Amino acid sequence: MRRRAQSTFVRPSLRHPARLVPLAFLGVAAVGTGLLSLPISREGSDAAEPITALFTAVSAVCVTGLVTVDTGTYWSGFGEVVIAALMQVGGFGIMTMASLLGLIVSGRMRLSDKLVTATETKMLGLGDVRKVVVRVALVAICVETVVAVILGLQFRFSYDYAPAKAAWYGIFHAVAAFNSGGFALYSDSLESFVTDPVVILPVTIASLVGGIGFPVVVELIRRTFKPSKWSIHTKITVLGTGVLLAAGFVFYLAIEWNNAKTLGPLDIQHKIQAAFFSAAMPRSAGFNAVPTGDLRPETWAVTDILMFIGGGSAGTAGGIKVATFFLLAFVIWAEVRGEPDVSVFGRRIPHSTQRQALTVALMGVAAVACGTIALLFASDAPFDQLLFEVTSAFGTAGLSTGLTGDLNNAGQIVIIVLMFAGRVGTVAVATALALRVRHRRFRFPEERPIVG
Amino acid sequence: MRRRAQSTFVRPSLRHPARLVPLAFLGVAAVGTGLLSLPISREGSDAAEPITALFTAVSAVCVTGLVTVDTGTYWSGFGEVVIAALMQVGGFGIMTMASLLGLIVSGRMRLSDKLVTATETKMLGLGDVRKVVVRVALVAICVETVVAVILGLQFRFSYDYAPAKAAWYGIFHAVAAFNSGGFALYSDSLESFVTDPVVILPVTIASLVGGIGFPVVVELIRRTFKPSKWSIHTKITVLGTGVLLAAGFVFYLAIEWNNAKTLGPLDIQHKIQAAFFSAAMPRSAGFNAVPTGDLRPETWAVTDILMFIGGGSAGTAGGIKVATFFLLAFVIWAEVRGEPDVSVFGRRIPHSTQRQALTVALMGVAAVACGTIALLFASDAPFDQLLFEVTSAFGTAGLSTGLTGDLNNAGQIVIIVLMFAGRVGTVAVATALALRVRHRRFRFPEERPIVG
Ligand SMILES: [K+]
Ligand SMILES: [K+]
Repeated sequence: MRRRAQSTFVRPSLRHPARLVPLAFLGVAAVGTGLLSLPISREGSDAAEPITALFTAVSAVCVTGLVTVDTGTYWSGFGEVVIAALMQVGGFGIMTMASLLGLIVSGRMRLSDKLVTATETKMLGLGDVRKVVVRVALVAICVETVVAVILGLQFRFSYDYAPAKAAWYGIFHAVAAFNSGGFALYSDSLESFVTDPVVILPVTIASLVGGIGFPVVVELIRRTFKPSKWSIHTKITVLGTGVLLAAGFVFYLAIEWNNAKTLGPLDIQHKIQAAFFSAAMPRSAGFNAVPTGDLRPETWAVTDILMFIGGGSAGTAGGIKVATFFLLAFVIWAEVRGEPDVSVFGRRIPHSTQRQALTVALMGVAAVACGTIALLFASDAPFDQLLFEVTSAFGTAGLSTGLTGDLNNAGQIVIIVLMFAGRVGTVAVATALALRVRHRRFRFPEERPIVG
Repeated sequence: MRRRAQSTFVRPSLRHPARLVPLAFLGVAAVGTGLLSLPISREGSDAAEPITALFTAVSAVCVTGLVTVDTGTYWSGFGEVVIAALMQVGGFGIMTMASLLGLIVSGRMRLSDKLVTATETKMLGLGDVRKVVVRVALVAICVETVVAVILGLQFRFSYDYAPAKAAWYGIFHAVAAFNSGGFALYSDSLESFVTDPVVILPVTIASLVGGIGFPVVVELIRRTFKPSKWSIHTKITVLGTGVLLAAGFVFYLAIEWNNAKTLGPLDIQHKIQAAFFSAAMPRSAGFNAVPTGDLRPETWAVTDILMFIGGGSAGTAGGIKVATFFLLAFVIWAEVRGEPDVSVFGRRIPHSTQRQALTVALMGVAAVACGTIALLFASDAPFDQLLFEVTSAFGTAGLSTGLTGDLNNAGQIVIIVLMFAGRVGTVAVATALALRVRHRRFRFPEERPIVG
C-alpha cells in the first residue's frame, strides 16, 4: 500500500521530465517577473519596464547573469532579494531535477545500493526523491554559508562596509557564486577585487563546486581518495574539468599577458590569479575580474568555446556539459582508431548515450547559429560581440562584452529565448527520451554517463 | 592467376585510402607549385613569389578558388592553363577516388550487379576501377564540352571576344564550373554577367552536376524516373540539395532584396536569377554574380552555413556534405522521437555510419573553430570576415569577402591548411576506418549512405 502511494506520487511528473523542467522554470520566471515589476522592487518611485523585469527574472532563474540594467543601482534592496531568491530557486531546481533525472537514466550513479533496483525499473521512490532534495540543500547551504561568512567578514573588515551591507553583499555573492548566477551588485562585476584572493578564491571554489554537478560532488565526498572506483561520469567530468581549466588558464595568460586593459598592469602573482579566475568563470559562474569587453578577440573566441561546453551535468552550470563534450571526443577518437565500440576507462558507452551526446551538442550548435543570425537582424554590433553574447546566453555563463544593455527589445527577446533554451533545453533533450526507449538486449556490461 | 594479379594491383592503395588521397593531392600540389613558380607562368618577366605559387596551386588542386592575386592579370596564358589543369586533376581525382571509396564502403551504390560480391569483400577488381575512371571522365568531358561551347559562343558573339580568347574563356570557366574550381579570369568573378542567363545558367548547372557527386549522377541517369528505386544516399542527397537550394534562395532574396550594392538595382527577373545563382554557389562552385564583400552580415552567416555543408559526396564539392548534414538531422529527429533506430526512407542507418557522420561534422566544426582562432592571431580583420574566409576555405567554396588577398604569410598558410583539410580530410576521415572495422553480426538489412 505504502509502495503504491509512492509510485503514484512520483511517476506522473518524472515520466514527462521534458515537460516538467521547462514548466517549472517558466512558472518561477513568471512569478519573478511579477515581483520585479512591482514598484517596491525598483530603486526610486517608478516600476521597472516589463521587458526589463522579464529579462532580469529569466536571467536570474536560469542562473545566467546577463543584465540590461545595473543590478546594484537599478533594483531596490527588495529587488535584490528577489534576484537572489530566483538564482537560489533556479540553481537548486536545476541541480535537483537534473540529478533525479540522471539517477533514473543512469543505473550507476546511485545514492545507495538500495536504489539500484529502483533505477533499473526507471522509477524512484518518494524516499529517494527526498534524499536527493535534502542532500542538494545540505551542499548548497554549507558552501553558501561558508562563502558568505568569508566574503562578509572581508567586506566588513578590509573594505569597511557597514555590517548590514557587508552581510548582504556576502550572502548575495555567495548565492550567485554557488548557483552560477552571474549577478553582481557591483557594476563592474568583481573587477575591483582582481587582486584580492580572499574574495576571488572563495567565489571560484563555490562556483566550481556548484558547477561540477551534484552527482560528482556526492561521489567526490564519498570516495575522495578512491578515484578508481568513481563512476565513469565522475571520471570524465573531473578529468575534463581539469583539462578545460588548464587549457583556459594557459590561453588567458598567453593572450592577455601584455594587454594593458586586462592582465597587463598586474604583477605575476595577480596575473596568474586573474587568469585562473577568468578560466573558471566561463564554466558558467559568469563573474569577471578583468573587463570582458577589453579582452582580445582571440580570448573572446576561446571563451566562446568554454562557455559553450559549460560545466558538469546536474549542477548549476550551463552549456552542453563537460561530459557531453569529452564523450564526443572519445567517440571521435574511437572512430579515428577504427574501434567498433567506444570504450572509456574500461567501460563501453552505449550507442544511445552517444546519440544523446550528439543530439545535445548539435542542437546546441544550431541554437547558437540561429541565435546569432537572429541577433544580426536585431543589432548592428560586430559579429564576434553578438556571438559572444549568444554563447554566453546559451551556456548561461552571463559574461558580456557590454552588448546586452544596448540591445533593442527584439534582441533582448532573442537572448531570453537562448537563456531559457540553454538552461532547460539540454537537460530536457538529454533525459526526456532516454526514458522512452524500450528496445533492450542483453549485451556486455554497460555504463552511461549523464549527457547534457 | 589473373584474379590474384588484380588484387595485388588494387589492394595496397585502397587499403590505406586515408593515406592515398592526401598523398595524391600533396603530390599534385607540389608539381603545380613548381610549375607556377616558373617565370613563364607569370605575366611580365618576374617569377611568382613562392607563397603565391603555393597558395594558388593548393587552391586550384583543392578546387577552392580563393586567390591572393588576380588570376587574369597576374598569371600568363601558360599559368592559366596550369591552373585549369590543376582544377581538372583535382576535381577528377577527388571524384574518382571518393567514388571508389564510396563503392567499397557502401554495398548498395554499385555500378553493376557483378560488383556486389566484390564490395562485400571490401575489394574492387581492376576492371571496376577502370569503369569508374572512364565514366567519371565521360561525365566530365560531356558537361565541360557543352558548357565550354555555350560560353565560348556567347563570349564570341554577344561580347565580341576574339575567337581564341572566347574559346579559352569558355573552356576555363567550364572547367572551373564543373570542378567547383572557383577560379575566374575576371577580377570580379562573374559579376558582369549577373543579368546574362546564357552565362549564368550553364555555369550553375555544370557546378550542380559536378557538385552533387558521381554516384548520384550515375543513379540519376540510370533511374531518372524511378526515384523509389534510388539508393538511400541518392534520396538523401537529392532531397537535401533541394531543401538547401530553396532555403538559400529565399534567404538571399529576402535579405538582399533592397541592398543597393547587390540585388537592389536589379529588376525582379534578375533578382531571382542572381539569388538562385548565389544560393547554388556556396555548395562550392565559388563564383559570385554579386559582390560578396557587399552582402549583408546576415547573408554572410547564412552563406557560412551553406559553405560548411557543401555539396554531394564523391563529387567536386567540399564541406561536410549534404548527406552527412541531413543524416545527422535524421539522427537527431530519431532521438527526439525516442526511436532506438534511425530509419530513413524505410532503411535503418547503421550505428557506424552515424558515428562517421558525427565524426566528420564535429571535426569540421573543430577545423573551422581552430582555423578562425588561428586567423585571429594573423589578421586584424573583423571576426565575421575571418569566419567567412575560413568556412570558405574548409568548404572549398572559394567565395571571399576580399580578405584573402590582404592576409600575411601566416594567414595564407592557415588558409592553405584549411583548404587541404577540407578537401581531403572529410573524405579520408569518413572512409579510412570504415574499411578497418571487422566486427560484424547478422542483423536486419542495412544500407549506408556515403558520409563526407
Ligand atoms: K552564470
Ligand atoms: K570552389
